[in-house]
Amino acid sequence: MSARYDFASDNTAPAAPEAIEALVAANTGFTSGYGTDPVSARAGDLIRQMLDADAEVRFVASGTAANAISVAALCRPFEAVLAHDHAHICTDETGAPGFFGQGVGLIRLGGASGRIDPAELTVALAQPDISHRQSPATLSLTNATEYGTLYSVDQLAALTQPVKAKGYGVHLDGARLANAAAAGFDLKQIKSLGVDILVVGGTKAGMAPTEAVVIFDRALARRFDARLKQGGQLPSKGRFYAAPFIGMLESGAFLRHAAHANAMARQLADAMPFRITHPVEANAVFVEMDEERLSALHSAGWFVYRFLDGSVRFMCSWATTEETVQEIGQVLQKLA
Amino acid sequence: MSARYDFASDNTAPAAPEAIEALVAANTGFTSGYGTDPVSARAGDLIRQMLDADAEVRFVASGTAANAISVAALCRPFEAVLAHDHAHICTDETGAPGFFGQGVGLIRLGGASGRIDPAELTVALAQPDISHRQSPATLSLTNATEYGTLYSVDQLAALTQPVKAKGYGVHLDGARLANAAAAGFDLKQIKSLGVDILVVGGTKAGMAPTEAVVIFDRALARRFDARLKQGGQLPSKGRFYAAPFIGMLESGAFLRHAAHANAMARQLADAMPFRITHPVEANAVFVEMDEERLSALHSAGWFVYRFLDGSVRFMCSWATTEETVQEIGQVLQKLA
Amino acid sequence: MSARYDFASDNTAPAAPEAIEALVAANTGFTSGYGTDPVSARAGDLIRQMLDADAEVRFVASGTAANAISVAALCRPFEAVLAHDHAHICTDETGAPGFFGQGVGLIRLGGASGRIDPAELTVALAQPDISHRQSPATLSLTNATEYGTLYSVDQLAALTQPVKAKGYGVHLDGARLANAAAAGFDLKQIKSLGVDILVVGGTKAGMAPTEAVVIFDRALARRFDARLKQGGQLPSKGRFYAAPFIGMLESGAFLRHAAHANAMARQLADAMPFRITHPVEANAVFVEMDEERLSALHSAGWFVYRFLDGSVRFMCSWATTEETVQEIGQVLQKLA
Amino acid sequence: MSARYDFASDNTAPAAPEAIEALVAANTGFTSGYGTDPVSARAGDLIRQMLDADAEVRFVASGTAANAISVAALCRPFEAVLAHDHAHICTDETGAPGFFGQGVGLIRLGGASGRIDPAELTVALAQPDISHRQSPATLSLTNATEYGTLYSVDQLAALTQPVKAKGYGVHLDGARLANAAAAGFDLKQIKSLGVDILVVGGTKAGMAPTEAVVIFDRALARRFDARLKQGGQLPSKGRFYAAPFIGMLESGAFLRHAAHANAMARQLADAMPFRITHPVEANAVFVEMDEERLSALHSAGWFVYRFLDGSVRFMCSWATTEETVQEIGQVLQKLA
Repeated sequence: MSARYDFASDNTAPAAPEAIEALVAANTGFTSGYGTDPVSARAGDLIRQMLDADAEVRFVASGTAANAISVAALCRPFEAVLAHDHAHICTDETGAPGFFGQGVGLIRLGGASGRIDPAELTVALAQPDISHRQSPATLSLTNATEYGTLYSVDQLAALTQPVKAKGYGVHLDGARLANAAAAGFDLKQIKSLGVDILVVGGTKAGMAPTEAVVIFDRALARRFDARLKQGGQLPSKGRFYAAPFIGMLESGAFLRHAAHANAMARQLADAMPFRITHPVEANAVFVEMDEERLSALHSAGWFVYRFLDGSVRFMCSWATTEETVQEIGQVLQKLA
Repeated sequence: MSARYDFASDNTAPAAPEAIEALVAANTGFTSGYGTDPVSARAGDLIRQMLDADAEVRFVASGTAANAISVAALCRPFEAVLAHDHAHICTDETGAPGFFGQGVGLIRLGGASGRIDPAELTVALAQPDISHRQSPATLSLTNATEYGTLYSVDQLAALTQPVKAKGYGVHLDGARLANAAAAGFDLKQIKSLGVDILVVGGTKAGMAPTEAVVIFDRALARRFDARLKQGGQLPSKGRFYAAPFIGMLESGAFLRHAAHANAMARQLADAMPFRITHPVEANAVFVEMDEERLSALHSAGWFVYRFLDGSVRFMCSWATTEETVQEIGQVLQKLA
Repeated sequence: MSARYDFASDNTAPAAPEAIEALVAANTGFTSGYGTDPVSARAGDLIRQMLDADAEVRFVASGTAANAISVAALCRPFEAVLAHDHAHICTDETGAPGFFGQGVGLIRLGGASGRIDPAELTVALAQPDISHRQSPATLSLTNATEYGTLYSVDQLAALTQPVKAKGYGVHLDGARLANAAAAGFDLKQIKSLGVDILVVGGTKAGMAPTEAVVIFDRALARRFDARLKQGGQLPSKGRFYAAPFIGMLESGAFLRHAAHANAMARQLADAMPFRITHPVEANAVFVEMDEERLSALHSAGWFVYRFLDGSVRFMCSWATTEETVQEIGQVLQKLA
Repeated sequence: MSARYDFASDNTAPAAPEAIEALVAANTGFTSGYGTDPVSARAGDLIRQMLDADAEVRFVASGTAANAISVAALCRPFEAVLAHDHAHICTDETGAPGFFGQGVGLIRLGGASGRIDPAELTVALAQPDISHRQSPATLSLTNATEYGTLYSVDQLAALTQPVKAKGYGVHLDGARLANAAAAGFDLKQIKSLGVDILVVGGTKAGMAPTEAVVIFDRALARRFDARLKQGGQLPSKGRFYAAPFIGMLESGAFLRHAAHANAMARQLADAMPFRITHPVEANAVFVEMDEERLSALHSAGWFVYRFLDGSVRFMCSWATTEETVQEIGQVLQKLA
């Protein structure tokens, strides 16, 4: 029996039909390269419209690249990014911020369920600027968080305001921005929160590989294409990165599919016989589960990960079905 | 009238049906991520089979990334890559080798029509190792070359042998490897030539964005996935990078489309009223054309580039039709 | 009253007469540059003799550079250095390993009084190699440690053996190697411990700015001068970095001064009215001291630092006098 | 017979008495570290006074580091430095700008005798900003040049004005600024020329290893100490880098010694039986000399280099004596 990856991550799903159809539709005729094509332009417009904001928009191949290039644009090598201790850029990107930023550091902050504790941020911002360590230059936030929770606009403002007051940058990792939006996060507030660079996740939202980098401050966007090209992130056939966004945004599938993923997480939580360790606010369910039971689940053919905080993570996606939720629910009931 | 990009590059074309169909076919069900899926495995097998060689195979998003990561794996920051003065890594990748290699240098060698002059290589290799400059550690070759010419196996061997004798690495940029193969270059000889890392171009061969990195020396492949992940080149939905290769290789379209592109270049050369400046051996035609005539061609709606050597380049691709060749041929006749 | 820095660090002291005299003596006549001069050769011989080992020896300007260049030679950007959580490379070098190593990561291990807990090392080495994080490639040790304690040869062997068994490198930061040697650490065991690159501290030992980088594995030394030159660490007038080592080693002052510094720390510990928080085994005394008393000490004109573990650090050097120890001892008695 | 390096470079000489005496004089008592000491402050004042300008001043260990850190502060990795094809940063620093700047590129401009041809600069500045190559962000100048010639203030202005008009930075490599000043270059004009960062050479001017980095634009100086620390260029015993400047500047030896070196070059030029290939305006004499005669000169015990343009270079320094000039003059007469 081959392993089932339905709940292993939200990137184990295929791309949604709306994304693929748009990709196929964009694949006609000759066009100019490197993101100068009309498909890329149209996708940029749709993203600006979704955010209700003026911004430069680029499309890149991976979330790691999108995040690392963003923080490298906001920090110098002898500076650091403030981020949650379990943020993806801290734990799952193989040191990409340091690679793209030539040593850019990470200042890791605590906080329950993936949300940065404002008190820890205050302490970090109050540290004197000394030459022996990397002082902060940017705050990196993630919404929805790595623990499937949500920041409200007010919670984000409480974090971004003191950072902007210091003249520092703000990066928002929106690998699961669709899930946040579907859960009520108002995307039109992002710019006014002081976010400098936003990454709008395509892959986890159900697209073929693509992520949008949204640069609100046009000064930061100067020579950004050269930055991307040098970083291996300005593919010639740019329409392939832009088209899935068109398909998902024009049809409303971006939010609709995310709402479905969130609903599936809610159903899974309801069916879950193990203690749930974090609020289920987006498309993830984290539970307390010992090694024996996790092994048994793996043996039963369902692959899921033990996460950084020790709990076990179940992710839902646009492609998760009610039937599968019921199926794994029954398996879990037997293990509990 | 919007510009026509048919001859501007071989990456202005859409992806071929075989590539897209395979991509759509691969887009079913849940699967493990980051290149561990069966689609990626199958594509790797097909590439090993095409090369008749054991090797590690990875798929990345852009040729710039593929090349830069390759040379960074073969050089340290205080060393340099030997490459043709007009090689893509020297002229069109925004210094990506230096970025991925933290300052890796380029030693630019001359040679007619994009092929490195062996005498210049000999001189470069004979330079003493001194600490004030970046000594060579790798030779980077391109086949077919940037000028649409071909290296024969013997010509390549004459370049790789002295390099391997020094213990240096060899990188082969195969952005247009399909065109080279279709023109008679035997891909099964690549490993025995001493190539350490080969890039098999997908994009210009008619695929959606994807390039295969083939690492013949398994010692070099150690922790290569971490290298790719850190470099933003290990996308979660890896099957999207692998599937187009399956579609093109299983069907024979990889070579068949390249042969077509080469034939179109031959037809265009035959119809060309301007002096042809480089042998037409693959899918490019370079001609002598003054600024006035180039402007007129642009005004007539056909976009092509003036290249580094001053000649004007016309690229053909899998999607170039005989009709379009005739059409531009007639436009060019009027301008001549 | 200007502040007194006698106990602030062991680099606030001037250079010892033996170092300066050698520097002045070396400053005669014309000589070849970039470390090819006879003074550099002689200093290298003395260091090899001290270590009873064959090795390449180079002299650089700062300990940060010496350490960062060493670990960059032993790790690739997508790999990491295992080091004590409070090691100088982790806490006081502004991310230099990441800068020189283009993102090289740090895996921070705990352990009492600056010595790595072997159990934590075991756990770190047992982690699977996964592409999402930087796996270890090198262990960095410090002797004497940042907390003024000593590793014995056996304690070091317990750390280096499992690391070498994995094929990883070992770096030894010897900023205070003289103090360790004076406290009984046998320098002739360093090579057999499996250390690949050793930094022999000059500055803190009482020299003008200079640090020796000792590369035991000659394969690692290939093109090391180019590495140094590119890193801004191959000064033309190399004799100025080598001469202080000659003065200190030929005269025995290297060990003698360190023994004095250690003795002064012992005396200061004896006079100390505050609880001592770490074993006094080299030239540092760490004590428990509240903020009010530290402020009072500063107000009394004596500058010392509160360290990472919260205790207050008093460093002794070759230039610390018994009188000064008594003087600050009396000040401290009044504050206690 | 051991080789004589009197004319091999101006860094083969020992340090001048004024520099060494100041260094010895500064070596008393305890002081704060990392350039916060009174000696460093005093040296900074003297340099500001010499330049008649407000600026941040830092002292580093090598010219390569000083230059590379400067251009890295003025360029991003996907940008490039405009410099003379034979500028030291292009030819003799092992790619340090690319290392410190993570791939920062070099755009190499021609020009007779080491001075950039303004027409070549104009062409370079007129290139469109395209994402496939590294567009310029900074101009790097050298005065006196690598060919022992001088830029006048007007010649420099003709180069800096169009660069500043584009909003780009200007770096001035003053490894031989003393020689330029002694030859009439008005140091008080440097700031008004639009130079952003100036390197004032200490080593070649007759000091122990030290170079001053002068940052005219205070915004650029933000967190510069952290930049230096991370780059291994913020040594703890900073007074050793600052003191030589005090000795040389307070005594006037900085200019006096440079004037002597220039005069010696003039005398050597007068005695030279070979064709002189570049104007002798500072402390270098370049001549046309075949390989046989150069070999004979080496065999006679005098080491000099064949330079990049094929001519042979004789450098004079503060320590060059009239007797030595006569001595080598006679040797050369016999070879001619």
